[in-house]
Formats: sequence, structure tokens, C-alpha cells
Amino acid sequence: MELNGALAGLAELQKKLYAYQMASGMLSLDAVTVAPKDTAEGRGIAQGVLAGERHKLFSSPEVGELLDFLWDRRDQLDQLRRRQVEELRRSYAQLTRIPADEYMDYAMLVNEADDLWHRAKENSDFELFRPALEKLVAFNIKFAGYYDSAKAPYDALLNEYERGVDMKYLDEFFATLCRRIVPLIHAIGEKRQPDDSFLHRHYPAQAQRKFSDYLMEVLGLDRAHCAISETEHPFTDGFNNKDVRITTNYDENNVHFSMYSVIHEGGHAKYELNVSDDLQYTCLAGGVSMGVHESQSRFFENLIGRSRPFIEAIFPKMREFFPEQLEDVTAEQFYRAVNRAQPSLIRTEADELTYCLHVMVRYEIEKQLIGGTLAVKDIPETWNRLYKEYLGVDVPDDRRGCLQDSHWSGGAFGYFPSYALGSAYGAQMLANMERDIDVWGPVSSGDLSQVSEWLREKVHQYGGLLEPGQVVKNACGQFDPSVFADYLEKKYSELYGL
Amino acid sequence: MELNGALAGLAELQKKLYAYQMASGMLSLDAVTVAPKDTAEGRGIAQGVLAGERHKLFSSPEVGELLDFLWDRRDQLDQLRRRQVEELRRSYAQLTRIPADEYMDYAMLVNEADDLWHRAKENSDFELFRPALEKLVAFNIKFAGYYDSAKAPYDALLNEYERGVDMKYLDEFFATLCRRIVPLIHAIGEKRQPDDSFLHRHYPAQAQRKFSDYLMEVLGLDRAHCAISETEHPFTDGFNNKDVRITTNYDENNVHFSMYSVIHEGGHAKYELNVSDDLQYTCLAGGVSMGVHESQSRFFENLIGRSRPFIEAIFPKMREFFPEQLEDVTAEQFYRAVNRAQPSLIRTEADELTYCLHVMVRYEIEKQLIGGTLAVKDIPETWNRLYKEYLGVDVPDDRRGCLQDSHWSGGAFGYFPSYALGSAYGAQMLANMERDIDVWGPVSSGDLSQVSEWLREKVHQYGGLLEPGQVVKNACGQFDPSVFADYLEKKYSELYGL
Repeated sequence: MELNGALAGLAELQKKLYAYQMASGMLSLDAVTVAPKDTAEGRGIAQGVLAGERHKLFSSPEVGELLDFLWDRRDQLDQLRRRQVEELRRSYAQLTRIPADEYMDYAMLVNEADDLWHRAKENSDFELFRPALEKLVAFNIKFAGYYDSAKAPYDALLNEYERGVDMKYLDEFFATLCRRIVPLIHAIGEKRQPDDSFLHRHYPAQAQRKFSDYLMEVLGLDRAHCAISETEHPFTDGFNNKDVRITTNYDENNVHFSMYSVIHEGGHAKYELNVSDDLQYTCLAGGVSMGVHESQSRFFENLIGRSRPFIEAIFPKMREFFPEQLEDVTAEQFYRAVNRAQPSLIRTEADELTYCLHVMVRYEIEKQLIGGTLAVKDIPETWNRLYKEYLGVDVPDDRRGCLQDSHWSGGAFGYFPSYALGSAYGAQMLANMERDIDVWGPVSSGDLSQVSEWLREKVHQYGGLLEPGQVVKNACGQFDPSVFADYLEKKYSELYGL
Repeated sequence: MELNGALAGLAELQKKLYAYQMASGMLSLDAVTVAPKDTAEGRGIAQGVLAGERHKLFSSPEVGELLDFLWDRRDQLDQLRRRQVEELRRSYAQLTRIPADEYMDYAMLVNEADDLWHRAKENSDFELFRPALEKLVAFNIKFAGYYDSAKAPYDALLNEYERGVDMKYLDEFFATLCRRIVPLIHAIGEKRQPDDSFLHRHYPAQAQRKFSDYLMEVLGLDRAHCAISETEHPFTDGFNNKDVRITTNYDENNVHFSMYSVIHEGGHAKYELNVSDDLQYTCLAGGVSMGVHESQSRFFENLIGRSRPFIEAIFPKMREFFPEQLEDVTAEQFYRAVNRAQPSLIRTEADELTYCLHVMVRYEIEKQLIGGTLAVKDIPETWNRLYKEYLGVDVPDDRRGCLQDSHWSGGAFGYFPSYALGSAYGAQMLANMERDIDVWGPVSSGDLSQVSEWLREKVHQYGGLLEPGQVVKNACGQFDPSVFADYLEKKYSELYGL
């Protein structure tokens, strides 16, 4: 083997991995957007084959040799190639520990589970989903051992979504947040809540669709490269930096649900669209970690989208989309309504303040599930108990309880903490951004370009070129969750006159 | 190798081919339905890789050995397996003659060409599409040699879409039709045309969408297995017999355009959905040939959909969807309007009678293009000249001329004649069906189940299990294009009082 040939092999390998990922992602996207309902069988077969082919390709001894050859010569490689080899070697080591048949079975299971979860949620019937979930948990515990047998299984899974993060780190992180947030929530509990009844007037889906188009424009999302469609649970799929899809869900009696899901997914989309061209079709093309990704989505959703200047900027236009519904509402009333802090049932509808407690419920359950101290059959009971304990709310059914999120049906255990981490990263980025540029002047006239440019420069462009920790350091400095707590304290003290 | 192992290998090979086909088909479907506009690059890379991987898989010497091994033992195989091996050997022989790099380049070219064709059509700018079309033609001439070097190139391509059909056969076929149809068209030219102005009133897309849902119900298409979406050019994608997609296009000033495209694509969909379960995920899963496929789509579109009993059956319901637009219209007037025979510009909007002349234009051009006697740059001129000659119409621009169809941009040369063949097959099937069952009683009450069942039994269920010629014989008896001519003569004589 000589170096140039090996480098060509490296590029080709990554192109192939990209193609399998895109094909498989497209089948998944289709499944939840336009596919007819009873089509899981044929898609499952295709997904299983694609996963198997990708696995065979990536786990071959030749790939191992290629990567070793290049790693031995890493001093001769540029930063881009060196980093690609480093990342691929890490993935290769993991993958080659998972037997091919288990890997294929898992891909088919995830496909089936998605379908079952949808039905289970629709009918609020946990039993329908339970057998699949049990298999998913068992697979993940087994896979955790393949990932890093020296770690506790849940630590190994957490490391997949946010490298370097473990239960010890998160226990402390959540303890800090709890210590600062819970008293705030209690204090707010004593106060009079702002009226938000106008958010629940009838907002026709068709008008909301047009409003989404407007929001995408405000966010600076180029529709020639970013499409929006509708799914049960909103998400973002970034195939490459010129092809990103976001989804939302229109609730005709909750205008803010889709509004903030579009801004949230728009934040993810901006990240994917801004990754630099030279990282495309390589293993470094996407966002660097789930936590950093969530920092971007929640940055736009909360720090910008739920800020007074932003709402004042877009509210006049919003009244054009919903003239009757918002006839008697001011921007200030709207601002207060969408920032109403009140313990509730649904994570994706939760306010900025109580949100982290929703994440903590899931974190506690995952910790026990993967740790082997909680059986899948006991999830509903535990879920309901923790919601009562942390948030003080009674869960009326599993649809609004442990079946509300799609993550577990997709096999994602260890993902949820990223949402809370992302919120905290984002708050610290804002603090730094405010030191660097005039944030609120432009935002108050609906111009997000400077904010976007700061994030592009500090975070987005790097894709996976830097380690997650480096990106966080780049944009946050030394990570300190109390910056997030300070932000929440200041915002909610003003809102509720504490 | 022992037989059971080889049979397992046969099943696995076909599952893999199915998966690649589905993945690639899904990327194509996405491209023309929901993908953002400027996303061709990343999709092209993925399509190229998938085509290459599929090619590598299918063209490997091991596959050749497997197929030879099974072919040598064909007496020990059941009909299903024997037929699979026969078909796969044919495809293998062809594929292994195409060099892998040419195959991949072609896949990428088709992806690009689709995008270019869309833009060219939008701007009526043939030059934009010309370079890609030149490459497509060159590739197809080369591929024709790989398919069957003993045949003239266009004969080799025709054989791909309808095995056994060649230029000699088609020249005669079209001559027969011409001899019978052209006098009819001339005779009609002397007659007063029925009023069809009400078809061009304003029919809002939203109401047309609901009408499409109704039509799919009448056709007996199960929405849990068949979705409908919107594209420039309507088409059908059958991934398997439980997952079929049709598309249509709503023209707010031509209600019959989408109406008949839904019924046409619905006919294709019924075929794919009725192929028997034991053929799924094998090379025999889809319709047997383009001609037979078109016989089914045009059967529903014209023989049923443009029949008086069918229109009388659905018209009352249609008036519910379009109360104002059809207020002063009777079923009889509607029947006459959608059967108005008049030379026109657009094939997909052409009436049943002049339709074959549109096909003849394309047949003549393809014959010369692939035969090397016509240059791509001269297509517009030739197209316009032939439209004048055959149909007596002046083509005002390439958008309504040689850029109207998507087939060439998809690399399909030799496909068009299938439309005319399909029409003729369909007419003969109807004649036989009328001998077997009461066709018009149930249809006149909107019940297509008996018609569907006859077609399922005679045609659909077999998928690719029989040769195209056998299926035609099954349903038509000895093929005779004059049955189609008789049908047209009878129908149009009555309509125009000839």
C-alpha cells in the first residue's frame, strides 16, 4: 500500500458510508412522512440488508488495515485526514466488536419498533410496545459492553452521544440545576400565572404552515437546501450541508407547539447547513455531538425564540397570519404566555425552566434500565412516580407519559441528557456572544444574521473536525452550568417579579 | 456447493437486489416529491455508490457460479425458483457485459439529467438539457450492444421493455393502427366537436386532492398500502406488493388531467399490489413488462374510466366535489367532453384515439436517434415536423414539444411503444372479459371489484413468473391489434355519429 492509494481508499470508504447512511435515512424519513401505514415489512427487509451491507463494508479486515496504515503515518496527514482516520478507527473498533448478525437484527428491530411505538402511542397501550422495548434495552446493554466493556453500560452509551460525559458528571450537573431551578419553580408557584388562553384558540394548520414558511425565512434557512414536512414527533435529518430536512407537527389548539418546534429544528438545520464544504461526504460532516447539536436547537428555540426582542420583532407579522386569533393580544402578552413556567406532562411542550426536570425523569429511568435495576414492564409506574416527585403532576395515561417520545423506539438510550447539556452550553454561548457582538439590536429588528454568523464561526463550520469538548470550549470557554442557572434566574425573576 | 445452500444464496441475493432497488427508488422518489431543489449533488453521490455496490454484488463471479449451478439442476427446482434463476441469468449476462465504471457513471448521469430536464422544461430551454441527453443517447447505444450485439441497437433496447418486440413488429403494428385510426380522425375532423369548456373552469387543487382520494377508493386502492403525492410528471413506484406510491399533478384549469392520471397510475398500482406474495422480494415481484403494465393503466384510464357506465356511476359524487363547476353539466356531456378526439400537443392529455400518434412521433425519433441517423440537437426540429405531419399541429415551444416527457431524462429509450401496445392489449382483454363476466352492470354502479378480480387472476398475480407473451396470451388470446381498432371505431362512430 502506498499513501496516495490509501488516501483514495479513505475517501471512497467515507463516500460509501455516506451513501448507506443517506439511503437508510431516506427510508426512515419516508416511513414517518409519506409512506403508507402498513409498509413496515418491506422497508424492514431493505433496512436490514442496507445495515448488513454497510456493516460488512466497514468491518472488513481491509478497512482495519487501511486505517492502521494511515494512523501509522498520521504525521504525514493534514488535520482533516488525520481526524477522519482517528474517528473512523474509533468507529471501526466499536463496530468490529458487534457481530454482524446482531447488528442486522438490531436494524430490523429498530424499524419494527418505530411502527409499534406509533401504534402504542396512538392507543396509549404500553403493552403493545413493551416486547420491542425489552429487546431494544437488551441490545443496548449488550452493545454497551462492545463499546467499552471497562465502563458501566450506561456510561458507555452516554459516551456515544456526548464523548467524555458519564453518570458521575451528569449526577453533579443535574444536582446543580436542581438546586437552582427547584426553588425558582416553587417561588413561581406562589405567583399569579400570565394568561395564555389565546395560545389555545383555533389556529388552522394551513395558516400555521404559512407561518412556518415565514419562520424559516427569519431563521435564514434556504428552502432550496432545507425542506419542512410533518411528522408525529418533530426532528431534523441532515443528509449533507446542501440537503437538510426538518419536520414539525401542527396542533390546531396550540400555536406555540409548532412555532417552537420549527425554531428548534431550524437550529439543528442551521448547524448541519453551515458545516464546511470540505467535510462533506466524510465521517466529519455532521454536528459533533448530540449535546452540541441541542445547544444550537435550544439556542434558537429559547435564548432567541423566547426572548422579548425576538417576539417583539416577529409579532406584527404573526398577527397577519392569525389576525382573529391575536386581535386582542400584545407582543408583551405573547412573550409572557410562551414563557409561562408551569410543571406539565409533555417534554417537548415544556417551558425553558421546567424542561430539565423532564430530562431528569428520563435520565433516572435510563440509568436504572441500562443498569439492570428497572424492568421494562415497570417503566410506566416509575415514570408516573417520578413525574409526581419531580414535577408534581399526575400522568393520566402512557400516551402523555412514557410513550410520548420516539427516542427509545429508535434505540437511543443516553440521548436525553444531551438536551439539558445543550441548554446549558447554549446559555454560556449567549453570554460570550453578548461580549463579542451586539446581539439584541439586530434581533429586535428580526435580523438573526449576526447571531448565526457567530455560531457558524465558533461552532457550526467545524462539524466533527474538533472534539465535542473543544467545540464547547471554543464557544463557551470553561463549561459552567451555573451560567445557565444565572440566566434562568434573571429571566424568570423579571417575568414573575420574584 | 449443495442445493439447499445454493437456494439460500439465491434468496439472499434477491433480497439484496430488492434492498438496493428500494433504496435507490426511494432517493429518486424523494427527489421529485419532497426534496429541496438544490440537492442533486449529494443525492448523485449516493445514487452512484448504491448503483456501484449493487453492480459489484450482482456481477461477481460467485453469483455467476451460483446461477450456473442452479441452472444445471433446474429439473430439481420448482417453477418459482427455476424462473428466478432463468431471469437472473439473463440479467447477469447483460450486466456483466457493462463495465462497472460505465454503470456507475450512467447512474450519476441519470440523476443529474433528471434535474436538468426539470429546469429545461420549466424554461422551455432544450439547450440546457441537450448535453445530458447526448450522453444518455450515447450510453444507451453502447448499452444496446452489451445487451445483444446481434440486434440493431434500438431492437436491443425495445427488447428490454417488451421482450420479443422489435422494429419490424412495431412498424407493422403502427401501420395497422394508422390505417384504421387516421381515417377516423379525418372523419371526426368534419364533425362538430362537443363542448368541453367546463373542464377548464377553475378546479381548486385542494378539491381535486379530495376527488383523488375518492377515485382511489373507487379503484379499490388500499391507502394503507398505496400513497399518492404530487410531481411534475405522474408515475407509479411499486416497492413491493404492500408498498406502492402513485403521483399526480393538479392543473387547476384542467380537471380531467389529474382525474385520468390518478386512474391511469391507479391501474399500474393495482397490478403491483396484486402480484402474489410468494414472488415478493425476488426478481419476479413487479409487473412482467412495460407493455403489459401499460395495458393495465390504460385499461382503467380509458376502457373503464372513459366509458359511459363508469362516468354515469361516479358523476353524481363528482358534482359534490365540484358543485359550482359542474352545476350545469350532465354525465353525458362530461362523457362526451373527456372523449373529445382532437389532435393536440401533449401526450398525457391526448384522447384515446389520437394518443397512438403521439407515441409514433417518439418511436420514429428514438428509432433514428439510437440508429444514429438523427443528432440530439436536431430533435426539436424533427419533433415539430412530425407533430405537424402526423397530428397536424404546430408546436409552439419545446416545453410543450420534445421536453414534455420525463422518459429520456431517465434513460428510457424504447419505452414509449409500450404505451400503444398496452392500449391494444387492454382492448383485447376487455373483449375477452366481456365474454367471461358481466363487466358493465357492476361498473355502472361504481363497482370495479369483478373487473379487478378478472385482471388479478389473468394478469396481476403472475408478476414476472410468466413471459410477457404468455401473460398476453393468457388474457388476450392470440394478439390482434385490429381488436383495438374495432373498439375505437365503434366507440368514436357512436360518439361522433359517423
